[in-house]
Amino acid sequence: MAAVAQDFSSAPATAKASVPHPLCPLTATEISTTADLLRSVWPSNIDLRFKVITLDEPAKKQMIPYLEAEHSGAPFPQIPRKSFVSYYIRNTDRFHEAVVNLTTGQVESNVRLGPNMHGNGDYDEILQVEKNALEDEGVKEALKKLQLPEGTVVCADPWIYGSDGINDDDRLYQVFLYMRDPANPGELDSNHYAFPLPIAPVIECNDYKVIRIDYLPTGADNTIREPRSYESVPPNEYISEAQQQLRSDIKPLRVIQPEGASFTLTPTGETGQIVEWQKWSFRLGYNQREGMVLYDVRYDSRPLFYRLSLSDMNIPYADPRHPFHKKSAYDLGDAGAGAMANNLKLGCDCLGHIQYISSVITDDKGTPTPIENCVCIHEQDAGIGWKHTNYRTGRAAVVRNRELVLQSIITVSNYEYILAFMFNQAGEVIYEVRATGILSTQPIDHELDKTGVPFGTVVHPGVLAVHHQHIFSLRVDPMLEGHANRLVYDEAHAMPLDKEWNPHGVGYTVSETVVETAGGLDLDPDSNRVFKIQNPSVRNPVNGKPVAYKIHAPPFQKMLAHPDSFHFKRAEFADHNIYVTTHRDRELYAGGWYTNQSRGGTGVRSFASRQDSVKDTDIVVWVQFGINHVPRIEDFPVMPCEILKVSLKPVNFFDKNPALDVPPSEQSFNQSTLVSELHHQPALEMTIGKDSCCADEASKSKL
Amino acid sequence: MAAVAQDFSSAPATAKASVPHPLCPLTATEISTTADLLRSVWPSNIDLRFKVITLDEPAKKQMIPYLEAEHSGAPFPQIPRKSFVSYYIRNTDRFHEAVVNLTTGQVESNVRLGPNMHGNGDYDEILQVEKNALEDEGVKEALKKLQLPEGTVVCADPWIYGSDGINDDDRLYQVFLYMRDPANPGELDSNHYAFPLPIAPVIECNDYKVIRIDYLPTGADNTIREPRSYESVPPNEYISEAQQQLRSDIKPLRVIQPEGASFTLTPTGETGQIVEWQKWSFRLGYNQREGMVLYDVRYDSRPLFYRLSLSDMNIPYADPRHPFHKKSAYDLGDAGAGAMANNLKLGCDCLGHIQYISSVITDDKGTPTPIENCVCIHEQDAGIGWKHTNYRTGRAAVVRNRELVLQSIITVSNYEYILAFMFNQAGEVIYEVRATGILSTQPIDHELDKTGVPFGTVVHPGVLAVHHQHIFSLRVDPMLEGHANRLVYDEAHAMPLDKEWNPHGVGYTVSETVVETAGGLDLDPDSNRVFKIQNPSVRNPVNGKPVAYKIHAPPFQKMLAHPDSFHFKRAEFADHNIYVTTHRDRELYAGGWYTNQSRGGTGVRSFASRQDSVKDTDIVVWVQFGINHVPRIEDFPVMPCEILKVSLKPVNFFDKNPALDVPPSEQSFNQSTLVSELHHQPALEMTIGKDSCCADEASKSKL
Repeated sequence: MAAVAQDFSSAPATAKASVPHPLCPLTATEISTTADLLRSVWPSNIDLRFKVITLDEPAKKQMIPYLEAEHSGAPFPQIPRKSFVSYYIRNTDRFHEAVVNLTTGQVESNVRLGPNMHGNGDYDEILQVEKNALEDEGVKEALKKLQLPEGTVVCADPWIYGSDGINDDDRLYQVFLYMRDPANPGELDSNHYAFPLPIAPVIECNDYKVIRIDYLPTGADNTIREPRSYESVPPNEYISEAQQQLRSDIKPLRVIQPEGASFTLTPTGETGQIVEWQKWSFRLGYNQREGMVLYDVRYDSRPLFYRLSLSDMNIPYADPRHPFHKKSAYDLGDAGAGAMANNLKLGCDCLGHIQYISSVITDDKGTPTPIENCVCIHEQDAGIGWKHTNYRTGRAAVVRNRELVLQSIITVSNYEYILAFMFNQAGEVIYEVRATGILSTQPIDHELDKTGVPFGTVVHPGVLAVHHQHIFSLRVDPMLEGHANRLVYDEAHAMPLDKEWNPHGVGYTVSETVVETAGGLDLDPDSNRVFKIQNPSVRNPVNGKPVAYKIHAPPFQKMLAHPDSFHFKRAEFADHNIYVTTHRDRELYAGGWYTNQSRGGTGVRSFASRQDSVKDTDIVVWVQFGINHVPRIEDFPVMPCEILKVSLKPVNFFDKNPALDVPPSEQSFNQSTLVSELHHQPALEMTIGKDSCCADEASKSKL
Repeated sequence: MAAVAQDFSSAPATAKASVPHPLCPLTATEISTTADLLRSVWPSNIDLRFKVITLDEPAKKQMIPYLEAEHSGAPFPQIPRKSFVSYYIRNTDRFHEAVVNLTTGQVESNVRLGPNMHGNGDYDEILQVEKNALEDEGVKEALKKLQLPEGTVVCADPWIYGSDGINDDDRLYQVFLYMRDPANPGELDSNHYAFPLPIAPVIECNDYKVIRIDYLPTGADNTIREPRSYESVPPNEYISEAQQQLRSDIKPLRVIQPEGASFTLTPTGETGQIVEWQKWSFRLGYNQREGMVLYDVRYDSRPLFYRLSLSDMNIPYADPRHPFHKKSAYDLGDAGAGAMANNLKLGCDCLGHIQYISSVITDDKGTPTPIENCVCIHEQDAGIGWKHTNYRTGRAAVVRNRELVLQSIITVSNYEYILAFMFNQAGEVIYEVRATGILSTQPIDHELDKTGVPFGTVVHPGVLAVHHQHIFSLRVDPMLEGHANRLVYDEAHAMPLDKEWNPHGVGYTVSETVVETAGGLDLDPDSNRVFKIQNPSVRNPVNGKPVAYKIHAPPFQKMLAHPDSFHFKRAEFADHNIYVTTHRDRELYAGGWYTNQSRGGTGVRSFASRQDSVKDTDIVVWVQFGINHVPRIEDFPVMPCEILKVSLKPVNFFDKNPALDVPPSEQSFNQSTLVSELHHQPALEMTIGKDSCCADEASKSKL
């Protein structure tokens, strides 16, 4: 790769708003230019299938002086604009990655990747796979044997193939088949997951042809049954018009912001945004893989986080049988949170005063494709922020907790994730995941409807939803008052019984342990283990403690798959609550850069295996969280949101509650209303003239 | 105790609304009548100090047929109305408990309780203790030695004495002293917790006289230092007018419900309320100790919970030194969540369309005292309830998650708890605790300001906030489709590697274990252990699984104090995440009926020690949760809310997502607004005529 040209000649230090920024996502023009430049290095008869064209983020060692200059108003260095590309020679398995220097107009690097490096799925490819699966003569033949009802419409759900090491060096798709409700096959939004079929074609990715048809085990063991004729079951639809009756007793609840929103967005260049709200400021980026990325997060100008993003997620399934044993999705690396983002709709996905942000990614031809309204920004009231009532004077001091929310919703085939960064007025950052959408289902014999199997739940007659884990990795690249940070953890332990010092056996203390070496670490609720990112060179002015942010993440059951399994090897983040590594550019994804049919060895466990010293240096902290989703029937046909939250909270970073200056919560501001004066004081009102039996009894008892 | 008169002669089965109910809280008249009846059994020169006059809830074996009759419209039995009383002979230590039959007008039982049974604090008593502490000559003398600034105003915080077994058989108060900001002593709402003083008088409870003055250790060990003259420190106020500057950039956010609330309240008798909302129905009760109590909770008429309430909480502190080693508060049993409830204010404590409920308890003279606006009921929008976008058609189906909230806020001296039951449209009940208010502080020598002690955090110069645990117990008395229920737990375990059955090492299964015997059980995130309340005699019509509700409670560090300590012995719930016992009337409080200076042996650990069979019988499940609060300086002078949630969620109780019939989230209903059309599609807009440097670079690179 060519040496990076660093030009530190002075550029004018103008207002930040007017200056495009090295961290801005690629523009539509930059995407086109990148594709053109890359095509220009190949013979004209070579067609490229683009997988990713995204900003190649500048090296941190370039960005740090840039940000320092930016915030101090000093002239800042020029940083060349580059794009990162992954692509195939179309209709081949020749997979490449390239870096294009958009400032110089040169392809800086362009290399073919080795075996078992595969690109992500793309939208056109997925549609192609669906189509080819359904048009395949062998598949048609196999479907015929199922004796489905007349007029049946079959749907194909292409699945990332997964890895088991058995003839899977080529990039493949496993396609699961379903049908629409046979009684209503014209309903395009029929929930076909209520009608899973027992065959699953496999498709290769050069010409997208069916290479094999797998027959699915539908019993309690590995047996592949002869197809039986279809036995009618009722549909299980989620669309509103298919419900017998919708609730009619829920009245409108509206969020009104008569003076507008409290945040400001300042566009920088075509694609960047500076978000400012309640002493917070950060840059909002967006890319095909991670979706939202936050850069340069500061509170009251004090640096906190260089970069925050959801780095990875893995969803391994529990069914040990072929071909289900390969089901293990990486929705970010295999598909892309940015690429799969919903077009958010006003008044449907949020309440209040909403700002939508759109972005642009590439399609498979290198053509810029807008991802419209992929992020929404709004404020929400999150209840009481703090309160104290002086019982001596009766004065209540209370403030509400306003939050800023940046939300993105992704659909990955059957499933939805609602992903949000939230900021509050107490200096806290919260990352929230709501898991919803439809369970990935498979057929099960009706004989088992009422007895089930221990690795799944029957959610509809003949429909099995297999247990699966959702394991997320939030990447936190801190810069707490500078870039030399450390990870420590606190634990609380009982003091030993001691006649002098702890005679009553009630004492306990909190001790702090410094993490010296890169690696994986775990929570321990029994010792109240709390991880903190610290800068020991900056001390709290009151109590002398190092400034810190602690990490609140719920404990979860880690990867259940065997350490020798591909599931385990690939999900390099799934075995520990926390990983800490030294920062290296390009080490962005906890499961490795190319997750599709990956083999492991390129993710955070591998980064950590360098065993770098992580004390008072530029570290990255990877926070894992998740759920073991044992489906309930209540999760079908669409699942009520399951909510997970990770919080980053200041610890001795400020010198008092940072939300102390939030104005009091007052009726003049909030303008709530009373349901009724009638019930205001029932005990006093109801006694007047009310001939209640209790009162009767009470008066009787006076006799 | 006299046999309970059960009259099963038919009463007319009228509409539930017009009929007062055996579970209604006592009325003001009933409280007065109870006090009068009790006084009447004593000579007229005997003055009684009432601690509690509350509903003596009917035996469950009476209530079950009553509720069945009520819901089936059959004639229901008469149940006598009774009150439960605890009281002292005033100015003595003679503590009694009595049951008064209000229907017959008779005192059914009236017994003096044995040693180490003490009543709770009451409001008048607390004010008396404050006054007497400050007026005591010895205390004045001791204060003089502290050489406090001219004009200093000293405040007294009476604390429940706790237990250490050393001369503490009598009921006592430990009084911690503070002063208002000496520079501003006229400010009645000055945060005196920023100015703790090193002496702590002890007061007895017959005449409320000072019997001892304790001197507090202020160093790193047990040493009691000679008082030094006061060294000036700045104040640390939470009141708004004391802040240098309040934020001016937070704009109004209002919740408008133009058609009113979606819930209905039906008063029953003077004090009861039936709450109905979105297929939910339950009775709201209220008492001095627990505050809100919910009875007969049903969804779509299906029985779920006979009784739900916060049963207990314990807050043990970490300082091993005298007298701090006794700090271990039971805010419900020692003071009363019902008694300490804030008078909630419209537009300050909630947004939207609010219903307030008031209640009535006794004062120390047996006079009914209104607790005004102690519960507020309102709805809130809790984000997206479920969503699925069909990527083939682009159609998004989305509903919002509306919640019904019943909230009470209690102030226990320095500290606040915001307690709420929440219900949603997916059949879930959530119990939320927000911990806020002011840390209980104590003095620390300025030499230690920057070095601290391992059992606390310096939160202000000279001010130590000691670590403490908050351990809550939620009492769940279930009736899932009937009163014969069981507790089970699921665990997920990896399948063993097996060439035939699990060759790839990815399989895992979920197994269920039935809890056979009463006892304490623990969470285990590593096995994804999930507790469920089940009724195995009622099966899901689709998958044949027993109907169940699962318990989601966050793991927490259990009681750190030594098993031989009084802290541990008293907090009978604090050592396990879950307790399960058979139901017995009066076994309502996890820490025992009388927590003040308790000795243990009367709480849930003792109930469980009967080792009753708990399989398919009338069980009670006690759900513990909490935090180990290691104070941050950000928690002072008032703490941002720390939020804890316990959820009860249906598992195979319904036959599909019960929120499927919630109407779609639509703009016509929600009426959200756009911040600006300008930023709608920045990537497309900004390219027009915008001479951005990025674009320039991109076009240059085309050359």
